[in-house]
Amino acid sequence: MYDVTIPLQGTAESPSAQASATYIQDLFVQTRARSEALAAPLSPEDMMIQSMEDASPTKWHLGHTSWFFEEFILRPYCTDYRSLNDQYRLLFNSYYVQAGFRHIRSKRGLLSRPDSAAILGYRRHVTFHVLKLLHSNSSNRADILKLVELGCHHEMQHQELMLTDILHGLSYSPLLPSYHEKKLPKASTKKSSPIHFTEFSGGLTETGHDASDFHFDCEAPRHKEYLPPFALGVRPVTNAEWIAFIEDGGYEKETLWLSDGWAYKQKEGWTAPLYWWKDGASWNSFTLTGVRPVDPNAPVSHISYYEADAYARWAGARLPTEAEHETAFRNHPIDGNFADSELYIPSRGPAIWGDVWEWTQSPYTPYPGYQPVEGTIGEYNGKFMVNQFVLRGGSCLTPRAQMRPTYRNFFHPHQRWQMTGLRLAKDL
Amino acid sequence: MYDVTIPLQGTAESPSAQASATYIQDLFVQTRARSEALAAPLSPEDMMIQSMEDASPTKWHLGHTSWFFEEFILRPYCTDYRSLNDQYRLLFNSYYVQAGFRHIRSKRGLLSRPDSAAILGYRRHVTFHVLKLLHSNSSNRADILKLVELGCHHEMQHQELMLTDILHGLSYSPLLPSYHEKKLPKASTKKSSPIHFTEFSGGLTETGHDASDFHFDCEAPRHKEYLPPFALGVRPVTNAEWIAFIEDGGYEKETLWLSDGWAYKQKEGWTAPLYWWKDGASWNSFTLTGVRPVDPNAPVSHISYYEADAYARWAGARLPTEAEHETAFRNHPIDGNFADSELYIPSRGPAIWGDVWEWTQSPYTPYPGYQPVEGTIGEYNGKFMVNQFVLRGGSCLTPRAQMRPTYRNFFHPHQRWQMTGLRLAKDL
Amino acid sequence: MYDVTIPLQGTAESPSAQASATYIQDLFVQTRARSEALAAPLSPEDMMIQSMEDASPTKWHLGHTSWFFEEFILRPYCTDYRSLNDQYRLLFNSYYVQAGFRHIRSKRGLLSRPDSAAILGYRRHVTFHVLKLLHSNSSNRADILKLVELGCHHEMQHQELMLTDILHGLSYSPLLPSYHEKKLPKASTKKSSPIHFTEFSGGLTETGHDASDFHFDCEAPRHKEYLPPFALGVRPVTNAEWIAFIEDGGYEKETLWLSDGWAYKQKEGWTAPLYWWKDGASWNSFTLTGVRPVDPNAPVSHISYYEADAYARWAGARLPTEAEHETAFRNHPIDGNFADSELYIPSRGPAIWGDVWEWTQSPYTPYPGYQPVEGTIGEYNGKFMVNQFVLRGGSCLTPRAQMRPTYRNFFHPHQRWQMTGLRLAKDL
Amino acid sequence: MYDVTIPLQGTAESPSAQASATYIQDLFVQTRARSEALAAPLSPEDMMIQSMEDASPTKWHLGHTSWFFEEFILRPYCTDYRSLNDQYRLLFNSYYVQAGFRHIRSKRGLLSRPDSAAILGYRRHVTFHVLKLLHSNSSNRADILKLVELGCHHEMQHQELMLTDILHGLSYSPLLPSYHEKKLPKASTKKSSPIHFTEFSGGLTETGHDASDFHFDCEAPRHKEYLPPFALGVRPVTNAEWIAFIEDGGYEKETLWLSDGWAYKQKEGWTAPLYWWKDGASWNSFTLTGVRPVDPNAPVSHISYYEADAYARWAGARLPTEAEHETAFRNHPIDGNFADSELYIPSRGPAIWGDVWEWTQSPYTPYPGYQPVEGTIGEYNGKFMVNQFVLRGGSCLTPRAQMRPTYRNFFHPHQRWQMTGLRLAKDL
Repeated sequence: MYDVTIPLQGTAESPSAQASATYIQDLFVQTRARSEALAAPLSPEDMMIQSMEDASPTKWHLGHTSWFFEEFILRPYCTDYRSLNDQYRLLFNSYYVQAGFRHIRSKRGLLSRPDSAAILGYRRHVTFHVLKLLHSNSSNRADILKLVELGCHHEMQHQELMLTDILHGLSYSPLLPSYHEKKLPKASTKKSSPIHFTEFSGGLTETGHDASDFHFDCEAPRHKEYLPPFALGVRPVTNAEWIAFIEDGGYEKETLWLSDGWAYKQKEGWTAPLYWWKDGASWNSFTLTGVRPVDPNAPVSHISYYEADAYARWAGARLPTEAEHETAFRNHPIDGNFADSELYIPSRGPAIWGDVWEWTQSPYTPYPGYQPVEGTIGEYNGKFMVNQFVLRGGSCLTPRAQMRPTYRNFFHPHQRWQMTGLRLAKDL
Repeated sequence: MYDVTIPLQGTAESPSAQASATYIQDLFVQTRARSEALAAPLSPEDMMIQSMEDASPTKWHLGHTSWFFEEFILRPYCTDYRSLNDQYRLLFNSYYVQAGFRHIRSKRGLLSRPDSAAILGYRRHVTFHVLKLLHSNSSNRADILKLVELGCHHEMQHQELMLTDILHGLSYSPLLPSYHEKKLPKASTKKSSPIHFTEFSGGLTETGHDASDFHFDCEAPRHKEYLPPFALGVRPVTNAEWIAFIEDGGYEKETLWLSDGWAYKQKEGWTAPLYWWKDGASWNSFTLTGVRPVDPNAPVSHISYYEADAYARWAGARLPTEAEHETAFRNHPIDGNFADSELYIPSRGPAIWGDVWEWTQSPYTPYPGYQPVEGTIGEYNGKFMVNQFVLRGGSCLTPRAQMRPTYRNFFHPHQRWQMTGLRLAKDL
Repeated sequence: MYDVTIPLQGTAESPSAQASATYIQDLFVQTRARSEALAAPLSPEDMMIQSMEDASPTKWHLGHTSWFFEEFILRPYCTDYRSLNDQYRLLFNSYYVQAGFRHIRSKRGLLSRPDSAAILGYRRHVTFHVLKLLHSNSSNRADILKLVELGCHHEMQHQELMLTDILHGLSYSPLLPSYHEKKLPKASTKKSSPIHFTEFSGGLTETGHDASDFHFDCEAPRHKEYLPPFALGVRPVTNAEWIAFIEDGGYEKETLWLSDGWAYKQKEGWTAPLYWWKDGASWNSFTLTGVRPVDPNAPVSHISYYEADAYARWAGARLPTEAEHETAFRNHPIDGNFADSELYIPSRGPAIWGDVWEWTQSPYTPYPGYQPVEGTIGEYNGKFMVNQFVLRGGSCLTPRAQMRPTYRNFFHPHQRWQMTGLRLAKDL
Repeated sequence: MYDVTIPLQGTAESPSAQASATYIQDLFVQTRARSEALAAPLSPEDMMIQSMEDASPTKWHLGHTSWFFEEFILRPYCTDYRSLNDQYRLLFNSYYVQAGFRHIRSKRGLLSRPDSAAILGYRRHVTFHVLKLLHSNSSNRADILKLVELGCHHEMQHQELMLTDILHGLSYSPLLPSYHEKKLPKASTKKSSPIHFTEFSGGLTETGHDASDFHFDCEAPRHKEYLPPFALGVRPVTNAEWIAFIEDGGYEKETLWLSDGWAYKQKEGWTAPLYWWKDGASWNSFTLTGVRPVDPNAPVSHISYYEADAYARWAGARLPTEAEHETAFRNHPIDGNFADSELYIPSRGPAIWGDVWEWTQSPYTPYPGYQPVEGTIGEYNGKFMVNQFVLRGGSCLTPRAQMRPTYRNFFHPHQRWQMTGLRLAKDL
């Protein structure tokens, strides 16, 4: 169903470089369809849930990703466009200050109206009008194509959030319901081997995006960085390794923790990753297919930066920087367990991409020479460049088309509801 | 002394004293039907809303009122009864400690499953089995009838909460939606006359419920009280009078307020009743039929005890005690604007009951000799007898069948989302 | 040192009735001296402590009780009076709205200046000028005498607060310091006998203060009340009895507790009275003479209303009403363990007054016909008549001269830092 | 490249490299004396103030800086050392986990005992024993000297905190008292010229400390970094420039702010730097010499990172990185308005060091290859490397002996009670 090839930067012909209308129109249709497919297993009631301020209801994601196309493409470029409802402009704006007032984020879960049927109607309306615009002979065709591509990447980001938010919401139900009922492949019983490290020589290198094909502003400009020699784990840390950390008292040894991390952990009472609980001697976790035993060979997920950092210290290692990660990964084909597999659970195979987002030790800051895009669209990234850390690698909930070696995901160090894990690094 | 006929909505005759099976069965069927009728205008999404911890989703009210019959009647008295889902026992218990664990109150808004269709199915299942039990020859027939009657009164209380909770929930929507679209009668333009007071001689009197017909445990026992002479306003305070209070700086004069009340008001920034806002020179309010201009002749509603108390001080009067209120009202037929009118908005006519609940100055405490009912049912009232104030009179959201002159409603002094107003009293 | 006879209302000649200048001047001098004596064991640093918003630094109490005389007597009646520092008017106003702005209550602990020496100087200045005024031939002599008497009673109330606040403050010190080092009499080892109850016939009675001698406005007017027959414990509940409650799981049985009380207890993690902790098998408590083993025969103290109420339910009894307490106590000479003993710890002897304040089940509300005093002084009591409960009986920290059978102390139901205990009551 | 003489206040010669016993002993004596001199203007009451959790009472600073020498030098190296009071070990430990339990940070303001006289006695005791140890022939002499030097630098850091904490504490007093009464030089009336920028060519450079003389672990290791060309303001931003920002609506334009910064500003209601308020048309501020008009030519201070970042965006510039700052400053003699001037207020002269700490855009993270010191002392820096930003340059409250071009100060982005300002940077 979703079969877009995204050649890697550097090694192949970039379709974004030619920016063919065909490629972008296909991406648009497939992205819009996938959001709806992701919502399909949910009842109208499921789509209302907002379990914390960080999360949003599925309904809202469906509306907001449509609002994005309406606000930045249809309103400015489609003079005869009529919105289905002008109040949606307020309801589905997330944080774009220049785009006008917004509905309070923490109250999104109270928006029973428009109902989900109306929102799906709104989606159809917007999808149709964008397609119509793409088939017209607009004099702004080049700009429009770029914005549609941006809107698709924006929507792919929200597809991952839809899944993490619905997992969080369902976790509050004593019924422990499943998001999907698909049969998952059996967890491997082969014990994974001890971790090995690959060595890198470092030196003066360049990181960041440079080409003309699609990327977010925060990935540029490409710039020089000097890296001392380093080594990187060949795979992320596994659940079995994390259980060893727990059993060694990792959650009780204050000296392993950053000061802010320890305070947060104490306040929240963390003793294991989010969604884990112990049943006798064995660990279970709540997943998008309901309760499952923790798979010892799969990468650990749903941990905060604070936990990742404490683990690395316990293991005599450290977290990688984002430059190290980018340097190590950039020549590997982007192949791994992404959302396209429709498993929605980490299940380590041979690939090095996918499965879990990997916390880096790099705060999310502007690259040297960074300039946000002009105008409202420019609020996308720059204003979040404080108090957050960069994650790399993509997860089993990330659409593969969204990934690039320069892609910078970012979250606050206490956040755990994303599909977040870690990979160890060492100085040489 | 207490000799009032309480006709049920529609047709049923009230027997009170004989508590005939026929009366109770009719009450049961009508009460069950009315809850569903109240939910009918709502979408599945509307029924999910929980806008604060004090409020519950409509879905939850529908489930909980069924759970009550299942837990206290079907499980103990119907040996072959099979619940549709044993987990509902946990989900729909509100606060009955002895009935086992409860789902966290503040998270009721996250319960997307069971969905509303399933809950309506649960209702049908419970309604059918209760009716079946009523038609059987149970040796516990007398006990069962009493419990069914209690369950109906419990459900009527929740009917009022369903309406106040849905009003609160919808008030967060920027779309300002209506719960119902019925045409309301035009507000009277005749200015209401200044308030008059009726005088009462006081003396040694008896208050509280004494008869064998239905009442909650907190209304008994009937007991002696000595009342000094007093006077009571012939009608509640109106919106026009409240506007005069606002315009005279009532919300800014600290000496009019109780110390705790002033602190609360300052923290919350109250400057008018809940749901009011000023549009130029005129006041609007949000109601179950959407936005409406404030009707000057209607009783003020959605005020806290703190505001009611400050108003009374400003007006050179005081709030009545519950004994005064009961003494004054007990010989009046219970006739007024109740939920049975289906207006769901205060609209003062000639009657003295209904429209708004009236704050009294009486804290909700046990009457002398009060004993809670034995067992789980006994948790109904007694454990709330702290930090709350009694309200009397019934509102336009109260089913008329629920009212008695001895009925004690109670809320915390800061709460405003109920249909709460006031009536003035004076010493003689 | 402090030797004022306060004859009881009813039985003897009231010195307040004649309101002799001599009596009031003696009371004034002794009260002023006693406050300074209470502060004498404290360093300037001790006198700075404010351990919570409910408590105030000793310095502030010393200043505020002087401000009271300055504000209500010296400023209005002594035309040539010059304050030492006009800013004290702001600093030492507690809550008198009409007396102008106030310093924020929660920040009193930051007031390093004026230092304690300056405040003692301020006290001397005020004391001298009040005495000078009392010796002058003011035409307002009668009014002034009344206000001086009121100021003394106000200051006596603050004397108790000084002790409870300093105990609370010192309890945060890991050094567990003593306020005073006096040797206390040994705790009795004789086991106290099981509790007996005295029976009262009830009926129409009168409570509240009626005479012309000194009382606070909230004690009046004297009014009729009808009491059903009741019984009252001959002594307060003891520590030994409280330990039995703990050992029987009293703090873990939700059905014993009021709903608000249980929530509060859970949030705060209460498992015993304030200042208690277990050391192996035995209970210790922190007192004004440092750490002491809990005396099994002494009345339990430092419990909240919620705990008192739960205990009474556990014991198959209830708390008395204030009318019952007043009825039972009013013919007993006011003789017991008051602050005048300088023990500052409950140590039950034969008397029924003193030792601990006893929670009643009566919310602190106005008596029928209550009118606050006109003007600023009238803010003393009325505005606190919400959310609090009446306590009766006086404690080992209360100056005996302050007590009357009609005296109404009041605190919020969650508060525990006062010397609060309980006495059981029963219906007959 | 790093070749700056750091003369001690007064007389001592800086030896840095040779770290002679004489130099360290003099540094020790002078540092100990200076802390006491800083506390001298304060009363025992002033020394108790703790106005927020981030701040500590002066008493505590005096005790804690002595505890540091006792814990890390006297206890391990002085076998016959007897502490004055073993409980001080608990009371004056700040955050050293491995050194045992700590007293709760937020309750330091309640520690009336030991009183300030006892703490000064404790200081004398510790000072004497350290001196005695320095005069003995310990076989660990080299280690001890290093630890004494570390202890002095630790104490110098606390000297700055003593001043910022006391300023914060006194700011709550309605009396607006002064910490010191010294006459300050008149503010210059000459208008400062528009800001100029110095250009730097960038390239591959080295930053961080490399030499054997004293530095904190977080300043090392020296490492390579690649810098693009940049420009740096020749002076910090002034109060006059900040007023222009305010007047241009800087505090109301959401698009100038980081998302977290705007949320924080809204919650706190910031409209100007901390301690500023407007009096008619002119700005005043509260300082260590009481209320003073804001000096337009002095560097702005008491601003958060969020404000500094918003200002830079408004000015079309950005904050420098710490590598840029270090590169630009390292060849300038460390000469400026430090605490040694005893002015304790920013007053820009020709120098580029001192006056205010300058926020950089660099999060406080470990340098490549960073290793914390082994053992308890190693908790000094590493565990704070999250959620904070580096500041450079030193302030008018910083002892000059503490400064080095590699020195990394760090605070959370919302904190404003330090002497914090900013310097603009630009890309070339």
